[in-house]
Amino acid sequence: MAKNEKQFVKELTDREDDFSQWYIDLVRKTGLADYTMVKGCMVIKPYGYALWENVRDPLDRRIKDTGHQNACFPLFVPQSLLLKEAEHVQGFAPECAWVTRAGSEELEEPLAIRPTSEAIIGSIYADWIHSYRDLPVLINQWANVVRWEKRTRLFLRTTEFLWQEGHTCHRTAEEAQAETMKMLEVYREFLETELAIPAVAGVKSAAERFAGAQETYAVEALMSNGWALQAGTSHNLGQHFAKAFDIKFLDEDNTEKFVWQTSWGVSTRLIGGIIMTHSDNSGLRLPPRVAPYQVVIVPVMFGKDKDAPTLEKTDKIAKELKAAGVRVTVDTRDNVKPGFKYNEWEMKGVPIRLEVGPRDIEKGQVVLVNRLNREKHFTPEAEMTAKVKALLEEIQAGLLKHALEYRETHTTRVRSYDEFKETLESPGGFVVGAFSGDAEAENRIKAETKATLRCYPLSQPEDAAGPCFITGKPAGKVAYFARAF
Amino acid sequence: MAKNEKQFVKELTDREDDFSQWYIDLVRKTGLADYTMVKGCMVIKPYGYALWENVRDPLDRRIKDTGHQNACFPLFVPQSLLLKEAEHVQGFAPECAWVTRAGSEELEEPLAIRPTSEAIIGSIYADWIHSYRDLPVLINQWANVVRWEKRTRLFLRTTEFLWQEGHTCHRTAEEAQAETMKMLEVYREFLETELAIPAVAGVKSAAERFAGAQETYAVEALMSNGWALQAGTSHNLGQHFAKAFDIKFLDEDNTEKFVWQTSWGVSTRLIGGIIMTHSDNSGLRLPPRVAPYQVVIVPVMFGKDKDAPTLEKTDKIAKELKAAGVRVTVDTRDNVKPGFKYNEWEMKGVPIRLEVGPRDIEKGQVVLVNRLNREKHFTPEAEMTAKVKALLEEIQAGLLKHALEYRETHTTRVRSYDEFKETLESPGGFVVGAFSGDAEAENRIKAETKATLRCYPLSQPEDAAGPCFITGKPAGKVAYFARAF
Repeated sequence: MAKNEKQFVKELTDREDDFSQWYIDLVRKTGLADYTMVKGCMVIKPYGYALWENVRDPLDRRIKDTGHQNACFPLFVPQSLLLKEAEHVQGFAPECAWVTRAGSEELEEPLAIRPTSEAIIGSIYADWIHSYRDLPVLINQWANVVRWEKRTRLFLRTTEFLWQEGHTCHRTAEEAQAETMKMLEVYREFLETELAIPAVAGVKSAAERFAGAQETYAVEALMSNGWALQAGTSHNLGQHFAKAFDIKFLDEDNTEKFVWQTSWGVSTRLIGGIIMTHSDNSGLRLPPRVAPYQVVIVPVMFGKDKDAPTLEKTDKIAKELKAAGVRVTVDTRDNVKPGFKYNEWEMKGVPIRLEVGPRDIEKGQVVLVNRLNREKHFTPEAEMTAKVKALLEEIQAGLLKHALEYRETHTTRVRSYDEFKETLESPGGFVVGAFSGDAEAENRIKAETKATLRCYPLSQPEDAAGPCFITGKPAGKVAYFARAF
Repeated sequence: MAKNEKQFVKELTDREDDFSQWYIDLVRKTGLADYTMVKGCMVIKPYGYALWENVRDPLDRRIKDTGHQNACFPLFVPQSLLLKEAEHVQGFAPECAWVTRAGSEELEEPLAIRPTSEAIIGSIYADWIHSYRDLPVLINQWANVVRWEKRTRLFLRTTEFLWQEGHTCHRTAEEAQAETMKMLEVYREFLETELAIPAVAGVKSAAERFAGAQETYAVEALMSNGWALQAGTSHNLGQHFAKAFDIKFLDEDNTEKFVWQTSWGVSTRLIGGIIMTHSDNSGLRLPPRVAPYQVVIVPVMFGKDKDAPTLEKTDKIAKELKAAGVRVTVDTRDNVKPGFKYNEWEMKGVPIRLEVGPRDIEKGQVVLVNRLNREKHFTPEAEMTAKVKALLEEIQAGLLKHALEYRETHTTRVRSYDEFKETLESPGGFVVGAFSGDAEAENRIKAETKATLRCYPLSQPEDAAGPCFITGKPAGKVAYFARAF
């Protein structure tokens, strides 16, 4: 092993030693993102942003395919607007960044930088909506938002982050509820299909509800340290904001009514979810469907005069794969050893490494290496593209399978609080128990164990009913608990 | 004409009566954008945002095809960073919005919301770049920026706007200059190909230079009222920011050097450019390549029981066109008359209207109406898709041709200041004269005529040299002057 290689691998903290440091190492050393001199704000570097684009685009397609359109609303929320919905302002005012000055002039009214856009969008919808014919309004925006967080962690909790926020208005409560559930399912399916993240869809408790919502639903994923990550939320806002912002319409029966609203969003924290679901001690393992590069080609090089045929072949291979829609990069650096390159691209999570050298050219083959199991496939050149595509699908499916297996072995049904606490320590993960919904008990659990109620899953087990595992009161359903990011 | 129709058409101000009001009417009544309660900030509505997406995506492709990657840098610029480059802070400080408070806590250092990102990106690049092997850095970001403008106009000048900003670092001055010119040409070609806007590429005078740049280049388009619009800029930043932010690298010769930088951007004001280049008194005329809908299908409807076969046919046609990659919308509203629909979609600038009714179905035809000349094409169904595609190309080419003709008849070479002033009044447009570059003369022209020096075009006429039209001094080249947005 060259000196370079050893140093390189040494740079990653072991996941088992310090999960949190392992995560930060991965984010920074793979070039996904980094801290900046602006407190709590990250820079998403090109490799991380390409990953975000590959997450964003297939979700954007789903949002459009379900009848929504994108728009762009102002970054600023005047203080008076934010104050209109009481719960909302309580929830968000402590986290708001305020613009108080422009040029050299003090503003008459401070402007919050949107922590979320219900207030500004609500005030605008009030102008747009007059008749039942104006409904439904089905709009999404991709935007940056700012929440002044005390403790930040790259991608998972940053002062500024990127997200999409859907904001819809409907004629009836039923339509709003149907929309809420539709988008929850869009998120669940999207996470599973594109990110290979199996998520539990469910409804939140009152304590974990979005500030101002009537009901909050979420997709909850399980990270590889046994902690949960709220990966997306879908809120039925009822008429809370409609009443606060006076969003009314004249219905067909000629009476004036308030609209029924929903909002829903996912953010750049999904990148954190991808990392913490799939990666190992050698680095990232990116799902092929979203990986910036699906294949890295590493030509075996010997020195300038001998490499011309190899580089020519490399070029040809890259072109062929690109033409087939495969995202490819080529590493022709001559100042690092092959082993260094292998480690680096492994750390960066590229699903397939393709090696090609003079001996392979002689044999008319390429070598494909699977990032998950390091299996080598000596593949005849004629079969290369088909084999690459098959391997990419295999890797995508393999990641989902691993994540599902992990979740299954880390989801435990408990019947008592003692069992709950034991399980939380080992094996950790989702701890599932019949729960009466008692707010005091929920608080006690959080205070004593740091586990929170992640959701009441939509899909309840047959034996969900029974005595609540902590209060002993009758409970009609189970709840998922976990420590969470 | 139904009552509705008259009211509808009446709503648009005539371009000849009041260009400015005509423009605002168009933006608002076609659903592109609107004002909000946040001073100077607009909401880009779904129709406008779809147009922006169609502008953004082909430009993003070009930016990537020329070797750049996207990233995302912080929204905030700490005051101390902004102060580091003297010209830069002078140019932008008066327009900055300042965050001074977060939650209930006063910040130790105010944070500007980025008016442009040279300062924050420069400070980050200083951390990233160490060796000549780290160069070039070729990064772009799509972002929102904020400039506190006194007078705003939808899309053309708003407090918050969307843009892309490229920021690159190079090893040599020559490379930076080559990059500056490459991106200028990318913009020029993009404007011409995608937006059907013929733009003049040239270099700015010192007075019009970007604050902190060594040289600013721009693409200047001519709007249909004879005013110019700066459609995009490409700056050679030299080493100004590198020195201010200490962006150094160790070169191959083992000496430490400052990098050479460029930055370049276009913004949502391009939407304004599209509107003011192509539209007429009936409304928008959108270039097919960027139009949110390229075809609107209006079925001829008679009443619920009779319309089933027509709607079925409409469906089939829409599917066929969509499958061929045509962006289609269908207007099946039953509460407005066909004439109203025709006017509305004409106003919204959809390139082709497709009418189909029972008589057309009988004849196996559809009727295609060209937005530019209102020509009707009775087209056999079997030829529909091919004809639609051909018409879209014809319309795209037609818009560019009109715009070019307008520019040619509104570009006038002058030899004296009197001639200059006369020409500026009529026909207006670009007034071109040999110019010595005298700053005082440039100032005088601006003060006396409100025309500004748009650029010294890259492509100079053969007889460019001669006495300066205003000072009489020897001049080596011509400059384009115009009143401008």
